[in-house]
Amino acid sequence: MIEAKKNEIKRVFFDNASTTRVDDRVYNEMLPFFSRFYGNPSSLHSFGEDVSDKFEASRKLCANLIGAEAEDIYFTSCGTESNNTALWGIARAFKDKGNHIITSAIEHYSILNPLKEMQKEGFEVTILPVDKFGRVSPEDVKKAIKSPTVLVSIMHANNEIGTIQNIREISRVVKEAGVIFHCDGIATAGIIPVDVVKLGLDSFSFTSQQMYGPKGAAALYLRKGVKIRPLLLGGTQEHGRRAGTENIPAIIGFGKACELAKDELAENMEYIKGLRDRLCAGITNNIDKVRLNGDPENRLPGNAHFSFEYIEGESIILLLNSKGIAAASGSSCASHALKSSHVLLAIKLPPATANGSILFSLGKYNTEQEVEYALEALPTIVAKLREMSPLCR
Amino acid sequence: MIEAKKNEIKRVFFDNASTTRVDDRVYNEMLPFFSRFYGNPSSLHSFGEDVSDKFEASRKLCANLIGAEAEDIYFTSCGTESNNTALWGIARAFKDKGNHIITSAIEHYSILNPLKEMQKEGFEVTILPVDKFGRVSPEDVKKAIKSPTVLVSIMHANNEIGTIQNIREISRVVKEAGVIFHCDGIATAGIIPVDVVKLGLDSFSFTSQQMYGPKGAAALYLRKGVKIRPLLLGGTQEHGRRAGTENIPAIIGFGKACELAKDELAENMEYIKGLRDRLCAGITNNIDKVRLNGDPENRLPGNAHFSFEYIEGESIILLLNSKGIAAASGSSCASHALKSSHVLLAIKLPPATANGSILFSLGKYNTEQEVEYALEALPTIVAKLREMSPLCR
Repeated sequence: MIEAKKNEIKRVFFDNASTTRVDDRVYNEMLPFFSRFYGNPSSLHSFGEDVSDKFEASRKLCANLIGAEAEDIYFTSCGTESNNTALWGIARAFKDKGNHIITSAIEHYSILNPLKEMQKEGFEVTILPVDKFGRVSPEDVKKAIKSPTVLVSIMHANNEIGTIQNIREISRVVKEAGVIFHCDGIATAGIIPVDVVKLGLDSFSFTSQQMYGPKGAAALYLRKGVKIRPLLLGGTQEHGRRAGTENIPAIIGFGKACELAKDELAENMEYIKGLRDRLCAGITNNIDKVRLNGDPENRLPGNAHFSFEYIEGESIILLLNSKGIAAASGSSCASHALKSSHVLLAIKLPPATANGSILFSLGKYNTEQEVEYALEALPTIVAKLREMSPLCR
Repeated sequence: MIEAKKNEIKRVFFDNASTTRVDDRVYNEMLPFFSRFYGNPSSLHSFGEDVSDKFEASRKLCANLIGAEAEDIYFTSCGTESNNTALWGIARAFKDKGNHIITSAIEHYSILNPLKEMQKEGFEVTILPVDKFGRVSPEDVKKAIKSPTVLVSIMHANNEIGTIQNIREISRVVKEAGVIFHCDGIATAGIIPVDVVKLGLDSFSFTSQQMYGPKGAAALYLRKGVKIRPLLLGGTQEHGRRAGTENIPAIIGFGKACELAKDELAENMEYIKGLRDRLCAGITNNIDKVRLNGDPENRLPGNAHFSFEYIEGESIILLLNSKGIAAASGSSCASHALKSSHVLLAIKLPPATANGSILFSLGKYNTEQEVEYALEALPTIVAKLREMSPLCR
């Protein structure tokens, strides 16, 4: 009886910023590489050959998605590894030139935490503020650059509030100063158009699991001529830039995910944006004391980040979850950290408002029915929580 | 016609030291976690819950294989990452105590290469020699320990020549001196019995793809109380010791692979050793000027490493490959490096002999028929190459 009731609950995944469902076409592409073509691509025999062509074809597909050349793509195991590699690797390679690094206050922890560690090793880090929409000012970047600056790292779009930066303008001022520019593109590659050449990037990280590919594969683009010291040392894989046996099935899935993302980008963007706009309109029209965070114009198509006054984001998450709806109260990488999001504090939300925030991140598998279902559930949940809240009285 | 002929060629995989075929039972265990249960275990909603129990159950299965507690297991993306993390992480955490590290000349590159880099950062490294069988002397370890020694890293068994070290005795002298002991167990976990408590280990690395599990998952065991600084920084995953979204399907496959390896260890060891002994006998009885390298007694059950005088190992590999037989001329991690194996030089093989070496590494999917097929092909191949060799005249 209880089981039957449980099964009636609709399951809605509005947490695509955390991870995505693997596309069936990606899944089918990967399957033969576990038990049939299981060779190590570094091997000299036919079992190695079985996989090495397909492996290199994946590199090309990943490069194509971002307008790069295949030989400038290095595979890693996850977005965090790509970001850590870029920061440590580039800063160490250019250590003779200087020790100053510039970043923004709303970067992902896989940028901010390595930089904290690097400060202990003698690097100086400037953390730029953002405006109320979460935008980094190119002018601020320009002013922060000084003679020992070796690296600027600014994310393409923010994973929580969805704000897309003016990367072309930022990279212009960085390149003018002769400084290396790394861009964390984990929230954007496969989701909005990315062209590393047009954007003027030296280094760019992106990951499979954010674009309907499998977990366990990510990449770092490095413009030809950008020196880097590897983070993982051992064998000669990836031309010595990333040791370790290549995760072939995941990388082949990543390649397919990049191919599909490129082919279907415009269509997916329009579809997802349509759902998101309907969700945003429904929330702002039917619930009061609510604000949409992030840039109202330049934002990720699937991102709807709201603050509900007087209540806790986590309580909303739990009640939504009881209705089968998955949303997030911040970055999933910090969901067990139980502190206010550094992104929301950086856009100067009062802490009480920040704590009442939730992120709906929509993806290509979501439907209009799911949006309507959430819009039906949400006002009651918010009203119920506000009734219980001492702040509301 | 050509296609038909090609299909007649038997395919024999004698390169299990490089990687292994994923067991069908492991494969089936992983499949639901790509497109059905695809949540991020850090999430607070039901999609996260779908995977988090199974994820933690995998940790327990991995721990069980090596006699550890689940909470002492940290997941990484590959054996190289586990080894790099142990070296950098432990040495940095104990930097105040000293800067001296001891290792052996036959370690894998994922140990030797990070140590080279660490020397540039002020660590002093002692590389111990091995005897003609590839054995590290516990007495040598004892003598090498001095007051600034913070870490000793010796592999459990060598991936090329198969020699199993007397780890219990080595760890005894290391622990007596109050020094941390890391053991690279990538070649042994799941292949021969491992008990980290009985072996007296502080740190131990092992990987899924060496035991019929998928690529993309590995682990680092750290005894409670052993301090470490993380290599990958970002989110709070793995209690802050390894940031990055967990590769759930691969980790679940790894858990199943560990469970199977534990349950079937004795049976697999006996079966594989039987095949290997038949192969060794056939080679030494039917081909002259050939020597078995490594410890004749204490060696990995599937390891058969031979040097054939007067010929190049790579030529044998290529001719074997034309018969559909996959073997290796050294570590696959260095197969494109085109230099003599550091392991063979360390056991003092003359360079010409070292260059005539090949490794047959057998696994549970190999059959007696495959061994007979290889034994049929090999004498002709060796004779043919020796006929062509100027060294033979």
